[in-house]
Amino acid sequence: MVENVLERPVAAIAAAAARIVGDEYVARDELLTDASGLRGVAAVLARPADAEQARQLVAWAYANDTPIVPVGGATGYSGGIVPEGPLPVLAISMQRLWRVRSFDPLLWRIEVEAGVTTATVARLARENGLLFPPDPGAPEQSQIGGNLATNAGGPHAFKYGVTSHWVTGVEAVLAPGELVSFGGPIRKDVAGYDLRSLLIGSEGTLGLITAAWLRLTPAPAQTIPVVAAYATIEEGVEAIYGALASGIVPAAIEYLQGTALVHAPPPFLDADGRQFVVIAEAETEHERDELLLALGPAAFAADPREVWRWRGGVSLVVRAVRGEKLAEDIAVPLDRLQEAIERTLEIGARHGLEACSWGHAGDGNIHSTFLYDPADPAQRAASEAAAEDLFALARELGGSVSGEHGLGALKRGQLLGQWSEAAVAAHEAIKATLDPKGLFNPGKKQARPTS
Amino acid sequence: MVENVLERPVAAIAAAAARIVGDEYVARDELLTDASGLRGVAAVLARPADAEQARQLVAWAYANDTPIVPVGGATGYSGGIVPEGPLPVLAISMQRLWRVRSFDPLLWRIEVEAGVTTATVARLARENGLLFPPDPGAPEQSQIGGNLATNAGGPHAFKYGVTSHWVTGVEAVLAPGELVSFGGPIRKDVAGYDLRSLLIGSEGTLGLITAAWLRLTPAPAQTIPVVAAYATIEEGVEAIYGALASGIVPAAIEYLQGTALVHAPPPFLDADGRQFVVIAEAETEHERDELLLALGPAAFAADPREVWRWRGGVSLVVRAVRGEKLAEDIAVPLDRLQEAIERTLEIGARHGLEACSWGHAGDGNIHSTFLYDPADPAQRAASEAAAEDLFALARELGGSVSGEHGLGALKRGQLLGQWSEAAVAAHEAIKATLDPKGLFNPGKKQARPTS
Repeated sequence: MVENVLERPVAAIAAAAARIVGDEYVARDELLTDASGLRGVAAVLARPADAEQARQLVAWAYANDTPIVPVGGATGYSGGIVPEGPLPVLAISMQRLWRVRSFDPLLWRIEVEAGVTTATVARLARENGLLFPPDPGAPEQSQIGGNLATNAGGPHAFKYGVTSHWVTGVEAVLAPGELVSFGGPIRKDVAGYDLRSLLIGSEGTLGLITAAWLRLTPAPAQTIPVVAAYATIEEGVEAIYGALASGIVPAAIEYLQGTALVHAPPPFLDADGRQFVVIAEAETEHERDELLLALGPAAFAADPREVWRWRGGVSLVVRAVRGEKLAEDIAVPLDRLQEAIERTLEIGARHGLEACSWGHAGDGNIHSTFLYDPADPAQRAASEAAAEDLFALARELGGSVSGEHGLGALKRGQLLGQWSEAAVAAHEAIKATLDPKGLFNPGKKQARPTS
Repeated sequence: MVENVLERPVAAIAAAAARIVGDEYVARDELLTDASGLRGVAAVLARPADAEQARQLVAWAYANDTPIVPVGGATGYSGGIVPEGPLPVLAISMQRLWRVRSFDPLLWRIEVEAGVTTATVARLARENGLLFPPDPGAPEQSQIGGNLATNAGGPHAFKYGVTSHWVTGVEAVLAPGELVSFGGPIRKDVAGYDLRSLLIGSEGTLGLITAAWLRLTPAPAQTIPVVAAYATIEEGVEAIYGALASGIVPAAIEYLQGTALVHAPPPFLDADGRQFVVIAEAETEHERDELLLALGPAAFAADPREVWRWRGGVSLVVRAVRGEKLAEDIAVPLDRLQEAIERTLEIGARHGLEACSWGHAGDGNIHSTFLYDPADPAQRAASEAAAEDLFALARELGGSVSGEHGLGALKRGQLLGQWSEAAVAAHEAIKATLDPKGLFNPGKKQARPTS
């Protein structure tokens, strides 16, 4: 075997990790991937038992110039956990930080370690009459640490806000290996700068989140999706504006469009020949009645289990049609919703790809999707070109290249143009300040292209 | 007249300001004060007409090593606008940035300049069936820029969240004089670091906020305060826990305690001999009925105008009793609420001062208040010593020294101890990065004591 020049550093990383977490919790050459389909190999993957071991791993890596890649439930869409670059990395899996440190249902709060799944928090809340609203999907795999690192959204962010709104405190390891907390089990706090919010959504590039204090809220007594199908995109978007004018705040306003409805036909209505389906969720009978009025004569109340089970499966079903899809998550001002949806189709046509979209219409956050055959390099290249056009569209419409998935590796460089040069410089200054060696998740959430 | 060695720099500042904003919008030796009672003199106060003039003022000040003090509606409680230090400062009043740049009621959003009053936004929203929930008080004077700079709260933050939750975009001038925007009229955005949240609550120490994109929400059809008086603090706090267990989210959960009820007797109930009054606000009849049950047999529905007019006046009435009061805004975990309220009274007794409290019980955010005669130096000193004890109490209970007023000048140095040394170092690193010359509102939001 030809000796790899990086073999010695890898052995040193593995040995250090084993000293900290124990041999049985260290793996070599671990392939890491997520829902983006990107892949990369972590020279060493360590599974710390608790925040203190995570701190020691970071401290060792920082002292030894070793890149750190935090790994949560691997359900992200932008390659945030996928190792990159020439140096061997130390990936840190948060899987064993699975403890619920405290739970006070009567005070609407819970403190969990980063590796606790979203489903666990949701279940504990539900069993106590409470709700943890963020629902970014894949709850059985997705972990709270990853939810925070990406500031995850989901359908119910429309009424309830994204993950950040439900976090009162963050515990994290900062460079060069300091375990700190910003906030805690308190509902208001303006004493320091909002470093809690700065870490949330930072995709592991400013520090390693080890635990969170979360707020909960009483669960609604019922959820009633009001659904309707429309002949055109224009009619569907008008219905969404109608829901905004109904005087109530729907818990969610979702849409699905075009061939998404052909590939994944909704079981609860006949969308045949229809271009657009709207789901607006009510939580009371009064809200249901207002939404029925707002969405027009075609609207009716559907079974929530049926609606959300189907809605949760759309992405996978559409992906299977050609074998792969490229799905983005741009967000646009609500007055540009129709344009964003229509131009997604135009972009697909220009690149010879079938396109469709769905998403969180009430938040202007659309999952523009291009279907392609992964075995066909030309189609893959076309999908990447289509994505570039889509990011340009988001910027042109005054929107964001990412409403909820983050930049990760997939959207590297796309912040430039959305933000001005001076704003990007501030983004980069923050990174350089909190991670002076550039070791936290290198290459991710990078504002401008590398070259 | 003895020539002041600082006279030449002051003349230069005034001349530069006049070139940018015009002679008639520049004042000399302006006394600045806010609701904290702190006072200081701005060598020069300039009133820019728009964001571009504000940018030019900052650019000149930054190039000429001149401290910048942003001035909003002067309704803060921590001396955030009060100039300090040996150098002559350029204060920048946002009063003339009074424009509503855009308003889309059907899309629940508004873009306003920093000098627009909170009342203007609230009124525009209300006239269109919408609500801008943050209600920190003094709405006719208080400005949106200041609301953002302090991340202002208020009673309805309990249900609706603090100011940050309603801001989708911030426009600000950063060092050394760059006008930037983070976010905009989009409801979701995770492309860059959350610099929007970092600026919010930064008290003018990281940049000068010039405009904001705000979210609005449909106004509730009605507001029904459910009120009750209790014999003891313990009974009152139990009732608050009862409201949390009611299965609904009250719009606000307020309390008033002790001699506050003697000095400012509620006009809507007989609090004679009672220690504690709770106000929990319902927005539907169902919620009203749940709160009536939760707050016990003494509870009844009161007139919202009567309740909130009285509630808004409490602070001034109590202040007038001895001539002055020292009122803080610590926040504690909800399980420590009773202890925080009782120990406020003990702290007052220990320092020979009448003490009482009120505040946002549902958020654990209490306004601990010590009454004193401002003409009596011993009493003033006692009140300051009491405040120190109170901050120590907040830290001991795992809370925050400030739930909604910010550190300003009044609470300088109080973050240390609440945050660990490493967390404070991150706070300071952010300041040094975004304001390398330390010219933005010097001495404010400072984590550790100066010496």
